[in-house]
Amino acid sequence: MNIGIIGLGKMGYNLALNLKDHNHEVTAFDKDLDAVERIKGEGITGVASIEELVQNLPKPRVVWLMVPAGNITEMVIEEASKSLEAGDILIDGGNSNYKDSVRRAEQLAEKGIYFFDCGTSGGTEGARHGVCIMIGGDAEVFKSIEPFFKDIAVENGYLYSGKSGSGHFLKMVHNGIEYGMMQAIAEGFEILDKSQFDYDYEKVAKVWNNGSVIRSWLMELIENAFSKDANLSGLKGVMHSSGEGKWTVETALDLQAAAPVITMSLLMRYRSLEEDTFSGKVVAALRNEFGGHAVEKN
Amino acid sequence: MNIGIIGLGKMGYNLALNLKDHNHEVTAFDKDLDAVERIKGEGITGVASIEELVQNLPKPRVVWLMVPAGNITEMVIEEASKSLEAGDILIDGGNSNYKDSVRRAEQLAEKGIYFFDCGTSGGTEGARHGVCIMIGGDAEVFKSIEPFFKDIAVENGYLYSGKSGSGHFLKMVHNGIEYGMMQAIAEGFEILDKSQFDYDYEKVAKVWNNGSVIRSWLMELIENAFSKDANLSGLKGVMHSSGEGKWTVETALDLQAAAPVITMSLLMRYRSLEEDTFSGKVVAALRNEFGGHAVEKN
Amino acid sequence: MNIGIIGLGKMGYNLALNLKDHNHEVTAFDKDLDAVERIKGEGITGVASIEELVQNLPKPRVVWLMVPAGNITEMVIEEASKSLEAGDILIDGGNSNYKDSVRRAEQLAEKGIYFFDCGTSGGTEGARHGVCIMIGGDAEVFKSIEPFFKDIAVENGYLYSGKSGSGHFLKMVHNGIEYGMMQAIAEGFEILDKSQFDYDYEKVAKVWNNGSVIRSWLMELIENAFSKDANLSGLKGVMHSSGEGKWTVETALDLQAAAPVITMSLLMRYRSLEEDTFSGKVVAALRNEFGGHAVEKN
Amino acid sequence: MNIGIIGLGKMGYNLALNLKDHNHEVTAFDKDLDAVERIKGEGITGVASIEELVQNLPKPRVVWLMVPAGNITEMVIEEASKSLEAGDILIDGGNSNYKDSVRRAEQLAEKGIYFFDCGTSGGTEGARHGVCIMIGGDAEVFKSIEPFFKDIAVENGYLYSGKSGSGHFLKMVHNGIEYGMMQAIAEGFEILDKSQFDYDYEKVAKVWNNGSVIRSWLMELIENAFSKDANLSGLKGVMHSSGEGKWTVETALDLQAAAPVITMSLLMRYRSLEEDTFSGKVVAALRNEFGGHAVEKN
Repeated sequence: MNIGIIGLGKMGYNLALNLKDHNHEVTAFDKDLDAVERIKGEGITGVASIEELVQNLPKPRVVWLMVPAGNITEMVIEEASKSLEAGDILIDGGNSNYKDSVRRAEQLAEKGIYFFDCGTSGGTEGARHGVCIMIGGDAEVFKSIEPFFKDIAVENGYLYSGKSGSGHFLKMVHNGIEYGMMQAIAEGFEILDKSQFDYDYEKVAKVWNNGSVIRSWLMELIENAFSKDANLSGLKGVMHSSGEGKWTVETALDLQAAAPVITMSLLMRYRSLEEDTFSGKVVAALRNEFGGHAVEKN
Repeated sequence: MNIGIIGLGKMGYNLALNLKDHNHEVTAFDKDLDAVERIKGEGITGVASIEELVQNLPKPRVVWLMVPAGNITEMVIEEASKSLEAGDILIDGGNSNYKDSVRRAEQLAEKGIYFFDCGTSGGTEGARHGVCIMIGGDAEVFKSIEPFFKDIAVENGYLYSGKSGSGHFLKMVHNGIEYGMMQAIAEGFEILDKSQFDYDYEKVAKVWNNGSVIRSWLMELIENAFSKDANLSGLKGVMHSSGEGKWTVETALDLQAAAPVITMSLLMRYRSLEEDTFSGKVVAALRNEFGGHAVEKN
Repeated sequence: MNIGIIGLGKMGYNLALNLKDHNHEVTAFDKDLDAVERIKGEGITGVASIEELVQNLPKPRVVWLMVPAGNITEMVIEEASKSLEAGDILIDGGNSNYKDSVRRAEQLAEKGIYFFDCGTSGGTEGARHGVCIMIGGDAEVFKSIEPFFKDIAVENGYLYSGKSGSGHFLKMVHNGIEYGMMQAIAEGFEILDKSQFDYDYEKVAKVWNNGSVIRSWLMELIENAFSKDANLSGLKGVMHSSGEGKWTVETALDLQAAAPVITMSLLMRYRSLEEDTFSGKVVAALRNEFGGHAVEKN
Repeated sequence: MNIGIIGLGKMGYNLALNLKDHNHEVTAFDKDLDAVERIKGEGITGVASIEELVQNLPKPRVVWLMVPAGNITEMVIEEASKSLEAGDILIDGGNSNYKDSVRRAEQLAEKGIYFFDCGTSGGTEGARHGVCIMIGGDAEVFKSIEPFFKDIAVENGYLYSGKSGSGHFLKMVHNGIEYGMMQAIAEGFEILDKSQFDYDYEKVAKVWNNGSVIRSWLMELIENAFSKDANLSGLKGVMHSSGEGKWTVETALDLQAAAPVITMSLLMRYRSLEEDTFSGKVVAALRNEFGGHAVEKN
């Protein structure tokens, strides 16, 4: 089957190769023409513009976006929709906010274009050899593109999740759970680290990965990390975040769903960005005021 | 090799069978003599008292306790230590508090008895067919009993974790992480449940178990639970706890380790035990006092 | 001085009387003409439309809005701005979101109208006899309306807080702190309530209000509430919220400020709205799956 | 009336003067004999030993301890109880754990000595000029010492709270609430500090202290702190704690009372003691493993 890929970053590039491995005819574009040249060397058709990509595909066309969420996705969809025609299919495989996806599906539907929002998990390795993917959009039209998902996903690794927005929503919540799981694991190791015992963290992660209740891919990953740096002494504990955890928390607030664990995971990330806090100064000042407790000076 | 098992509850009974499967000579006792009779039917030697169990074993003896933590473990250890002699080995495979294990190891060492604290994970199925086990105690003596652990554990599923107390400490922290992971997963599904979308939770858990970052045994278990009751409509959301989560939180406090996710997991369990709260009434009363906000009457 | 009041709810009505007590000429309008009639009986000029209210005032006019935040404020500002002219002053005394206030100030500035965002605290009693008020807007023009604020506030109870938006922002954060303080007090009484002791909560609140570190107006209010219902047995612990706590949490997230206490106060309010939770069911189901722990049936 | 004071630290010294101001005959002892000499200069009888202090008092004796909680209180009570006789009264005005107070009351009751546990709030200034005090112990005997409490407390600032332990329990919970209130205030100012606005924090605290819902002594104290250091730039935000917050959290756990705000207040204090965290490193390592997200190196 024919498919166009817009965006040849780490994810999109690997996805294109993954599709090609499954005998799909892939046409690829990126504004970085070097990436286009590179992928041509892999036997994939590279083109110089979104318009050319669209023209190169048989109708009804299937175009997959793998570009950064937000403004760039917005601009690329706007441009692609100029060339696309009624009956064509546009798939957003990026980490877009589900509210944007609901809106975009409605806007594109006015032109007869079918929009699918796909949350993709599994990292760059997954993109290359088998992703986990959650797809929202029209149920009937989905069947026509299902073979793509079946091919690029690991076994049982794709799900048509319902109407537009449901795919990105599901991926967002997935990331929220991921924040909570990661923080839970991290707190556990912090307690070990402060304890009276002298644990080998790689071995601890390893035993927990074999038969315990908390065995999980994240535990495997931390086992791997400890195998390379036994006490993570080379790292700073600064925990950045890329937005989906915050969306999950905001969504939970909107839905009045009490999600303290996911929320606290996010707040501890924010806390880790600072060496000192103004709130800490306020509490220290208050203790000094009422109790004469000594403060630490800057 | 010869081993005695005290305690034939779900865990101990399965463990005895597991050991027998690996060609160990098992002598078993439980104060419930029916359980003793039952296990005799499995080809295991059953005895009528702890004293008889000890006398039945060749020196140096290896005795494994699998009885409820707390007072019962205390009493059983006291009784067993009357019959045991210097050079014998006593293994506590239950969920004892690591502080008790540190103390017991010291007390038994005065009599020359070697004590090992073993945290066991994997549930009753694990006890039968392959556990995950973390063992604290004397490093040298451990080697003499290592074959038992190797046999009953899944591959790579046992770890000698260091001095006395370290096994139960590790199991305790494992359970703390488990609380956090479970609450993270639970909050994710709650957000899905309150959303505008209409998800099939079994399918969601299934896709997340195939290729996603959050794939884990707990996610497999919830997939299984959803397969039996699609919306868990038969259950109440009352979350009981059996003590190790609380110990983890208390230990984190003692170590001044900030573990908000594990802590909040525990607090939400306590909250779930109540239909209404006094704190809620206080806030409702305050809102009424200063803002004239309506209160809901009982 | 002359001033127009739009909105004669509990807050606006009392504010109008408060202003009149301080010898200001008040013209008042509400779409509920009964309220207009009622306030005429108090010696205040009542009018039948916003347009009439504006025409009735000498230039430069000062108009104070005291209407519900959101759409109604938006509509009333739109209508008032049709009659107002360059140099006139519009004050929003409601609980508007500060982002709306920033936008409105810019939009009205294009017409030469000065906009002030005023966060008002102190409840209806405060509106009548002395408010606490935080005002954002043009620093120079503020001087011309300062006498109003000085008159209606308690001593030292008004603050020009800076550029547009700063008044409503300050009130929003005030409410966030209020959420945290209320929950802290509430948790304290819950611990007392579950304790082995038998406290008289009114007396406890009273002693804490006399000389202790936590003496506060909120503690006085709860003393008062306990004096009327010693154990709050007539109330349900359902904690509603009116939006500003949520805005504070969302703003903290946007600013990457870790505010766990204000955040958890909000989440416990959401939790109190439900008798049972889906997250609780998920955890109960998981415990049953791996440990065979009994679940409570619906 | 006659009273003996053991312990002339900041609190005990001021309390002795406070009692003397109200015409009580005070006999004072401290192991620091310089303090004893100093207080002699204030017209108070100083003695060189606990035994001498006890002998110096008419029967039934009233002895007030104001020494550090824990081992020192334990030792001093032990020594004092050697000299005290049946019918005498021992008051512990320090910050003892309520469980210790329950035990001590029972132990002293065996000798016929009446024990009272008094939680004292209000700081050193309060000790000198008017405390807030909560007293547990025998209800009948309390009447005989009530005049002391009435004299040293602010008006309505003392409460007989019930049986032994109830005084220290109440003080403990008071401190828990204090933690929550302080953190709520601190988070509010942190949000202001990170905002787009430019607030004068002293003025903000001042306006909030005049007519707002959150007016409180703690807000007055922070107003005072800001008046001395407008941005607290001289302070580090390290938040120490002296134990009663931790006891409150532990007690809440024992009572299965969900107290997330008090708990998180404590955890943020612990977090503030560290510049970097092991948990942060674990999360950073995990993000790097699955997403190739850059880590910050040490």
